[in-house]
Amino acid sequence: MTSPLMDESLSRDRFLGGRLTLLQPKRGYRAGVDPVFLAASVQARAGQSLLDLGCGGGVAALCAGARNPGLSLTGLERQAPYAALARRNATENGLEMTVYEGDLTAMPGELRQIRFDHVIANPPYFRRDASVPAQAEDREGAMGEDTPLASWVEVAARRCLPGGYVTFVHRSERLPELLGAFALHLGSLELKPLLPRAGRAAHLVLLRGRKGGRAAFRLHAGLVLHRGETHDCDGANYSPEVSRILRDGDPLIFAP
Amino acid sequence: MTSPLMDESLSRDRFLGGRLTLLQPKRGYRAGVDPVFLAASVQARAGQSLLDLGCGGGVAALCAGARNPGLSLTGLERQAPYAALARRNATENGLEMTVYEGDLTAMPGELRQIRFDHVIANPPYFRRDASVPAQAEDREGAMGEDTPLASWVEVAARRCLPGGYVTFVHRSERLPELLGAFALHLGSLELKPLLPRAGRAAHLVLLRGRKGGRAAFRLHAGLVLHRGETHDCDGANYSPEVSRILRDGDPLIFAP
Repeated sequence: MTSPLMDESLSRDRFLGGRLTLLQPKRGYRAGVDPVFLAASVQARAGQSLLDLGCGGGVAALCAGARNPGLSLTGLERQAPYAALARRNATENGLEMTVYEGDLTAMPGELRQIRFDHVIANPPYFRRDASVPAQAEDREGAMGEDTPLASWVEVAARRCLPGGYVTFVHRSERLPELLGAFALHLGSLELKPLLPRAGRAAHLVLLRGRKGGRAAFRLHAGLVLHRGETHDCDGANYSPEVSRILRDGDPLIFAP
Repeated sequence: MTSPLMDESLSRDRFLGGRLTLLQPKRGYRAGVDPVFLAASVQARAGQSLLDLGCGGGVAALCAGARNPGLSLTGLERQAPYAALARRNATENGLEMTVYEGDLTAMPGELRQIRFDHVIANPPYFRRDASVPAQAEDREGAMGEDTPLASWVEVAARRCLPGGYVTFVHRSERLPELLGAFALHLGSLELKPLLPRAGRAAHLVLLRGRKGGRAAFRLHAGLVLHRGETHDCDGANYSPEVSRILRDGDPLIFAP
């Protein structure tokens, strides 16, 4: 996708209980709660810096910025219209965010000179070889997977300062590959499963590693997203803990 | 340890609510609940076969045998006195079990000709380079780690029939290494965390893979072992579900 996103093709969505209002394409890649959880897991001090790899329209980075005053925000996005959208979303929400256009594997030279306290990513979820082709080119760009997951992790670790944190959100079925890549480049790994309902298998995982960390791997108790056995529509029946994270800006603590 | 275990050095312990009474050394390697959970996760049909790698005194294999009538039991144990103990435990409990003496990495030729429907292991828990030396030589043999975890998994997968299952129980901090090794040799991986108490990090994990399996990885909801915040002594305050597994012979189902 190279043409700019026209206003009539965008929806205006509220995040964090309305603290952010972000434009997203009505078709193509739209953020679910995944980048909101990812951002909620970042605990940053004022003066620290964050890089969002493959930032799309900026949801994860801007949620992290809204939660952590004084956190400097940077994004890298391959598709120009999404990069432009991220910049616009930042401006319209009164947040500063530097957005680079470029590919993970051929990163702009300027960005290659910078390292960050926090690097986050919500990489594409479907393997191109295992999924039906996406209909829209931009959707393919965001949801398909040209770049191997291992490269995402390697680049994230390289852009992370010593003692800094790399955090990814991903579908749980990709955990073996994700964990292997994290273990190659990072230490003090911590895994937080996200379960749709109590007793069910995790559908998402948050994985965090520390650059140079030496602590043992920790597998934390899962965060249960929804109350009860079923839910009728997205966003309904969130557990009170999860509502506070998604709407009231509570942090997502791995070991509460 | 090469000398036989004398009766006065053995304790007689009840497992599965008394369905098994097993001899264990009073000092040295003693089974906790870990092999009992491992055995409980094996769902076998009559006529199938099971190999317990590093079977020690036979707790995991014999618990699996007591739970699954008609399951043929085999063990491999490096230390002769433990192999002898496993044979005696089988006989005294009216179960048949073939126990080979030998090392994983130099397996008896006869065993190398056989493949099994189920291969289980409860490998040593401490890395020799990261732990204080054990006092007794036999304890070192069972708890220390001469053989890399990756070799345990490779050997287990090689001894498994196509369509068969390999299941390991291990400390959760070793999950990255264990999962990486499983992913190399097995498919349809499933992870079951065991949590000491609700909301706490997992201390143990059960990991199962299927030879030739092609299903996506699954991260199941954790099994909570103890009720409440603390427990005063081992075995106290097990959750009702866990009591039924440990004492009443209920199976440990990954996705109940």
